[in-house]
Amino acid sequence: MTRLTLDQAHDLAKSILLHNGFSPAHANAVADTVTAGERDGCASHGLYRVLGCVASRKAGKVEADAAPEVIDQAPSIVRVDAAGGFSQLAFQAGLPLLVDKARANGIAALAINRCVHFSALWVEIEQLTEAGLVALAFTPSHAWVAPAGGNRPVFGTNPIAFGWPRPGREPFVFDFATSAIARGEIELHRRAGKAIPEGWGVDAQGQPSTDPNVVLDLGAMLTFGGHKGSALAAMVELIAGPLIGDLTSAESLAHDAGSKSSPYHGELIIALDPQRFLGGATEQHLARAEQVFESIQGQGARLPSQRRYEARVRSREEGVEIPEALYHDLKALLEWE
Amino acid sequence: MTRLTLDQAHDLAKSILLHNGFSPAHANAVADTVTAGERDGCASHGLYRVLGCVASRKAGKVEADAAPEVIDQAPSIVRVDAAGGFSQLAFQAGLPLLVDKARANGIAALAINRCVHFSALWVEIEQLTEAGLVALAFTPSHAWVAPAGGNRPVFGTNPIAFGWPRPGREPFVFDFATSAIARGEIELHRRAGKAIPEGWGVDAQGQPSTDPNVVLDLGAMLTFGGHKGSALAAMVELIAGPLIGDLTSAESLAHDAGSKSSPYHGELIIALDPQRFLGGATEQHLARAEQVFESIQGQGARLPSQRRYEARVRSREEGVEIPEALYHDLKALLEWE
Repeated sequence: MTRLTLDQAHDLAKSILLHNGFSPAHANAVADTVTAGERDGCASHGLYRVLGCVASRKAGKVEADAAPEVIDQAPSIVRVDAAGGFSQLAFQAGLPLLVDKARANGIAALAINRCVHFSALWVEIEQLTEAGLVALAFTPSHAWVAPAGGNRPVFGTNPIAFGWPRPGREPFVFDFATSAIARGEIELHRRAGKAIPEGWGVDAQGQPSTDPNVVLDLGAMLTFGGHKGSALAAMVELIAGPLIGDLTSAESLAHDAGSKSSPYHGELIIALDPQRFLGGATEQHLARAEQVFESIQGQGARLPSQRRYEARVRSREEGVEIPEALYHDLKALLEWE
Repeated sequence: MTRLTLDQAHDLAKSILLHNGFSPAHANAVADTVTAGERDGCASHGLYRVLGCVASRKAGKVEADAAPEVIDQAPSIVRVDAAGGFSQLAFQAGLPLLVDKARANGIAALAINRCVHFSALWVEIEQLTEAGLVALAFTPSHAWVAPAGGNRPVFGTNPIAFGWPRPGREPFVFDFATSAIARGEIELHRRAGKAIPEGWGVDAQGQPSTDPNVVLDLGAMLTFGGHKGSALAAMVELIAGPLIGDLTSAESLAHDAGSKSSPYHGELIIALDPQRFLGGATEQHLARAEQVFESIQGQGARLPSQRRYEARVRSREEGVEIPEALYHDLKALLEWE
């Protein structure tokens, strides 16, 4: 393993992206999120993603110097046209106006359009909780997941994320796929020649299957939580697709045309301001929310992001470790071709 | 079974509520929702609920002539103080301003406070989809459900409902508890002396239990979908509790003090206007949403409210049937004591 401080990790990511043609603004915004992923122990959203960024650029699937355009769509709606660039810079561009609108009106929405998306949603959610706001985020992905009772993919892994500000503490944040499991997890089982647990996918006839090849190539993945999870996946498909005038997971997969790049589509973020709901009683009611967290943790159950925050404390002190092979692959992207 | 036309069902509910001291406005609003439940084949939200309404009144747990107060809280927030009355009239009171704000600003929220709540959320959601809006609704209930990894109740059955308008068709609507199953379902198993399936609840040590007595009296119910469902239940607890300055499920159960009445707390509804997101392209993008529904139904999977809409068509033609015993119990509430 190779140990890096968080600054070194950020510099490495940023210099690779710059060297491979990304504008300074994009290089910085992407380096921020992959460093945050590595820092929080989420290797799947960490430095490893820089390899994919460069590959997407070489495949012509992302605009390396797209300038996001912020549109004041309605009193409580901000729209950002990412113009084919990565989502991170588009989110940064829209964030100040989203925060202003939520604070002025109580609730506001940010619709990001035409972005290439691979970021974990909690990175964005935490920027809203830091501003004292409650936040929700939704995005489709590529159509890999069948509806409950079906046998053919319609939904993406369609994540839902939520954040609640906790004064003086890390926020309450969750961010999960509405699929039963990440697609990458099924791919790992295929590579290892191992069966997958029941509940992850179905065959072409819609029957439960534990064969990763069947689920990935012939049948479909399943949502978590049966028909309830399937209903939520449909909701994400609708509100982060047609509602914001952007692609569904099926349309995004068709657009990808087999290049295996990150999805190209939209994202919906909703921000609510406790101050506008509660006025002078905000502090008192946020304190009541703490009782909910205490009754969860007081019985030995965990809050959703607890492991991530523990990793964060460690990484700030000790830096992060990445596999030697990954470090060499990343370094190779700094050489002139 | 006793057969009633929908008008007869509505008249019966309304006259019982009037006879038992509810104001005409409350009697009418409650009769609307219980008739809708009966019509859609949801007996558990049908005429049977009128018995509970009268019992709640006799127990002093609901204000029978509360006049909801509508407060223009912020440019995109309506608040309604239900003043201890049933939620239905409070929702009716807040609906016009919520629709206005959503249409003007793109997204808006309705917070209902201090209401006694037993209504299905889809009844409210459908009034928003009828206005062409996308809608979400959340409410806590009584603390019966443990967090994932825990053994003590923190959450209510905390339903989430969603609606999407479909021009010329019944809307796409779902409305489900974040608990694995309704509490009433476990009570039915207890009465029948039957074991419950694994996954519905835990014992006092947090171990899976199939004994309804253990789950109801000593342990706790579980959420659907493991830690993901548990995270969603926590979200409902927060955004429809402290965010709107109202009771959590634990506080609502304490307030009930063993009377077994309907929960007394708040509700959060969010409405989004596709016209403000999409402008002139609204029709085109709503048509793209229809492709999502077609790819679900085209593979033989069902949309969430399909059974309800089928029952609705039948009930409009043939009326509804309720058990003779229920009919007699209801009729008895029309006699002078």
